[in-house]
Amino acid sequence: MARAVDTHEIEERGGTSYPAPFHAAVAGRFSRRLGDAFSLTQFGVNLVRLAPGAASSLRHAHSAEDEFVMVLEGTPTLITNDGEQPMTPGMVVGFPCDTGDAHCLVNRTEVDAVFLVVGTKARDSDVCAYPDVDLHLAPGRDGRRRFLRKDGTAW
Amino acid sequence: MARAVDTHEIEERGGTSYPAPFHAAVAGRFSRRLGDAFSLTQFGVNLVRLAPGAASSLRHAHSAEDEFVMVLEGTPTLITNDGEQPMTPGMVVGFPCDTGDAHCLVNRTEVDAVFLVVGTKARDSDVCAYPDVDLHLAPGRDGRRRFLRKDGTAW
Repeated sequence: MARAVDTHEIEERGGTSYPAPFHAAVAGRFSRRLGDAFSLTQFGVNLVRLAPGAASSLRHAHSAEDEFVMVLEGTPTLITNDGEQPMTPGMVVGFPCDTGDAHCLVNRTEVDAVFLVVGTKARDSDVCAYPDVDLHLAPGRDGRRRFLRKDGTAW
Repeated sequence: MARAVDTHEIEERGGTSYPAPFHAAVAGRFSRRLGDAFSLTQFGVNLVRLAPGAASSLRHAHSAEDEFVMVLEGTPTLITNDGEQPMTPGMVVGFPCDTGDAHCLVNRTEVDAVFLVVGTKARDSDVCAYPDVDLHLAPGRDGRRRFLRKDGTAW
């Protein structure tokens, strides 16, 4: 049965599944997969730490997955289709799926930024668009999502 | 397009949909519906404040909705099928659906406790069991969930 734990007991990991040309943008991003630690399957809850200079992701918009962010420490910058907005601890933002509002957070400060990210897990149906780069994420015939170029060829 | 806000800009509300005999347990519970404020429909994200003596809910287990809790302020007590566990800021716990592990948080201290609750919205299929009281929540033929007594009669 469920037992509460401190977030520091859940492993913090770096790394990304992005193709190699896009590794640098998220090299300073580290995540604790809090929801996975309790075997949750319907949504993910990640505690993300961005080192100075790092981005949470490439700017992206999901077709089928709602997303939500709450800042806990530091002052990351939110980037959406409308431009930029500074965020401070206690600020929140949500992204309903299928709006095309492509978003990410970047840390332009000299100290770490920490925030919680919640996102639906709809990996067999979700298509993710990346308006700023030659990248597209879509499920293949086997139901697994793969990174493609915008012309549909594989990375 | 999405604009981040401080949680204090989102209205805090009390009240409950429980039948009248169960109002007292959650009378000191107040919530800001953070996810709803951004029109998210796949999961809820509520910032919950428990006054001294209040409970987050009656102890319950969902059949179809994963749940996740992160404590931000105060020291609420987690109650599950296994008994009680104190929680402190930075502690998290998750409840995969359909395990039967009935849970709630209660505030036995003299100061407010504040935590984030994330839960899937699967209201047309979710059945919620309340092992400690004569209560059951299940969808009717119209797809809407209703509170029933354990013998199936309406409250």
